[in-house]
Amino acid sequence: MEYQSILIKDAIIIGSEIKKSSILIENDLITQIDDNINSNDADEVINGEGKVLTPGLINTHTHLSMTLMRGLADDVPLNTWLNDYIWPAEDNIEGKHCYAGALLACAEMIKSGTTTFNDMYFFIDDVAKAVDESGLRGMLSHGMIDLGDEEKRKKEFKESIRIIKKCHNTADGRIKIALGPHAPYTCSTELLRWVRRKADELGVRIHIHVSETEFEVEQIINSHGARPFEYLNEIDFLGDDVLAAHGVWLSDSEMDIIKNNQVKLSHNPISNMKLASGVSPVSKMIDKGINVSLGTDGAASNNNLDLLEEMKTAALLQKIQNLDSTLLSAQQVVEMATINGAKALGMEKEIGTIEVGKKADLTLLNFHKTHLTPYRHPLSHLVYSAQGSDVDTVICNGQILMQDREVFILDEKEVIQLAEEAAQDLLS
Amino acid sequence: MEYQSILIKDAIIIGSEIKKSSILIENDLITQIDDNINSNDADEVINGEGKVLTPGLINTHTHLSMTLMRGLADDVPLNTWLNDYIWPAEDNIEGKHCYAGALLACAEMIKSGTTTFNDMYFFIDDVAKAVDESGLRGMLSHGMIDLGDEEKRKKEFKESIRIIKKCHNTADGRIKIALGPHAPYTCSTELLRWVRRKADELGVRIHIHVSETEFEVEQIINSHGARPFEYLNEIDFLGDDVLAAHGVWLSDSEMDIIKNNQVKLSHNPISNMKLASGVSPVSKMIDKGINVSLGTDGAASNNNLDLLEEMKTAALLQKIQNLDSTLLSAQQVVEMATINGAKALGMEKEIGTIEVGKKADLTLLNFHKTHLTPYRHPLSHLVYSAQGSDVDTVICNGQILMQDREVFILDEKEVIQLAEEAAQDLLS
Repeated sequence: MEYQSILIKDAIIIGSEIKKSSILIENDLITQIDDNINSNDADEVINGEGKVLTPGLINTHTHLSMTLMRGLADDVPLNTWLNDYIWPAEDNIEGKHCYAGALLACAEMIKSGTTTFNDMYFFIDDVAKAVDESGLRGMLSHGMIDLGDEEKRKKEFKESIRIIKKCHNTADGRIKIALGPHAPYTCSTELLRWVRRKADELGVRIHIHVSETEFEVEQIINSHGARPFEYLNEIDFLGDDVLAAHGVWLSDSEMDIIKNNQVKLSHNPISNMKLASGVSPVSKMIDKGINVSLGTDGAASNNNLDLLEEMKTAALLQKIQNLDSTLLSAQQVVEMATINGAKALGMEKEIGTIEVGKKADLTLLNFHKTHLTPYRHPLSHLVYSAQGSDVDTVICNGQILMQDREVFILDEKEVIQLAEEAAQDLLS
Repeated sequence: MEYQSILIKDAIIIGSEIKKSSILIENDLITQIDDNINSNDADEVINGEGKVLTPGLINTHTHLSMTLMRGLADDVPLNTWLNDYIWPAEDNIEGKHCYAGALLACAEMIKSGTTTFNDMYFFIDDVAKAVDESGLRGMLSHGMIDLGDEEKRKKEFKESIRIIKKCHNTADGRIKIALGPHAPYTCSTELLRWVRRKADELGVRIHIHVSETEFEVEQIINSHGARPFEYLNEIDFLGDDVLAAHGVWLSDSEMDIIKNNQVKLSHNPISNMKLASGVSPVSKMIDKGINVSLGTDGAASNNNLDLLEEMKTAALLQKIQNLDSTLLSAQQVVEMATINGAKALGMEKEIGTIEVGKKADLTLLNFHKTHLTPYRHPLSHLVYSAQGSDVDTVICNGQILMQDREVFILDEKEVIQLAEEAAQDLLS
């Protein structure tokens, strides 16, 4: 629902401190945080009593359209998953499938409190159409792969430029386009150098997979005589505008390279566990001052896009991996899913915290539930007890996308129906 | 709601095969599974279209009343958690707190699809009152600790016998009492020998914590010159009526002891991760033919009682620990949470599968959700995509406890209010 002004009254606000207060939203911005805002000052008043307000959650690595492949194959080796299921499906994929899958993903993200995400896939103008319609904020990139083939490389350049020209900064600025070289093991050095040059030239960011599996690290060592981040550093690819997804297999010197170049990391614990890729040294990176954010990866390797589930799993995985229950506290995990995500996308001046002057991207959770009783330590409950379905109301760019779990911006039944038909068409 | 007969029509049934069919419940039993049961034959008809019916989920290790301590302390070392938070709270605990906490736990379990659980705590007659009122099926035990003190030991004997006499086989047989020696490191050999003798004499089962932490294993080695399961075997404590919770730190020869004595294991992955206790060798035990089931542990170390979350985490943890994505398949995890749980409690003739002649303990999940679209592979969606809030309807012992997410058997608001007051009273 679009209003000129919205008041969220008497919610527990996860801000610079955690306290009960009220928030006034005017147009797309947060304009007041105060205990005594008059209800008459707003077109719409949302009662926040018994509820917790967080910055809209930020998912820094996903492939929206892969929702169509949710549950297609599980419990199989990574190679089987890719070669026998995912790649054959992607061989047949068209823009209409990508649109339907992305729309389903957007509806799912709204229902679980995500307001901003970072996507990499194909047919990005179709994805952008879904994002525009969903009211969400997204950074999208065309996934580029050349495997050393010059012809293929030129096509990827052309498509990337086409998408940037067509979609960057559209939908009232909610949609940004990045360059998306898939990974060092699928992209030639020529492609990566072009990406670095174009990113500088056009002022767009870079989204890439790095060191998800041990196997790909060995491939890079064999072909380039250096570990992936060492190689990327040698070819001057790295910078503070690069977001690297996964970062599972990292040496200490690679972590120093990441830190020194201010590369942003997206940690995807559920996908890494499900595909048995390995455990990223997240606590160690945070200690070094590296910006680590959270991603769900695609629904085919998760199998959902619920950042609340991802937050809990991230904390649990660091604790058990290091046999230290103090690692990755609730506070740190909430930062990963909010402000660190904003920094990862270069959007920290606009989103990621609840502050006057920032965009009104907000997630309101209903804590009046049996599994959130007794009402205590909001950060602990948020990370360790809550789930996506506790999200009650979602606001993005000042627009109410969902209220009392009813999605206004999309027709959920139609979205589900469209996705069922697209999945049927794609996989039959 | 109590009806003489209930028909669940056209649901996907997770039975010996997975197929769409209908189920007739008469009184407390499943009496027909057939595509063509006439709706006129039932007092109540539940439309199962777009829904998935599983056996009621079984939680084989928890401490219900600890819901009051949910979020009391997180991200701290185990010793701090116990010494500075949990034990001081438990020093003040009374029957009224245990009742309120157990009632909250029962409401939470109903809302997330659990119909049977295995509890160990104090003031068990107060807990039993809550279980009776909630309509759930539970095995309860008074947690016995003597730390070698004879006086304390005699008190524990007396309390255990009192609870068995008062509560065993009450609430239409829904409540069973077991003997609950806390753990080998907190109970003397005398206490454990008495438990074994009484269990045989009274025909009740045994519920015990074993080898949750490496520290306690070292303690047993120091005091008894053998690892915990070796020691328990030497004193003839083990048998097919023993359910051991955790079993994290196990040698190969201990796994053989578990197998040979048909001891049942309860795996609690989230608690083990959150407290950084370690990873139980679950896949290895299942390969050896050991019956491994699933538990949430208490809400203070989880921090909820959602078995669907536990199922996903169990699968993810085995895969990542062994870097093998094929381990602990969705099918195996569903078995852990249903039939293996029934076997763990000696109830496999009554519950744990959907079969004619078994008790009507059933969980119906609504799959018409964005995060469960496309509608595909019910087992995969159940384990990897669903969450507790997708549970729509819960039936236990032929009685509808919740329908369309509305709990009939308890007043949720009152339960939450009572728990808030009890937590306030206990911890202030």
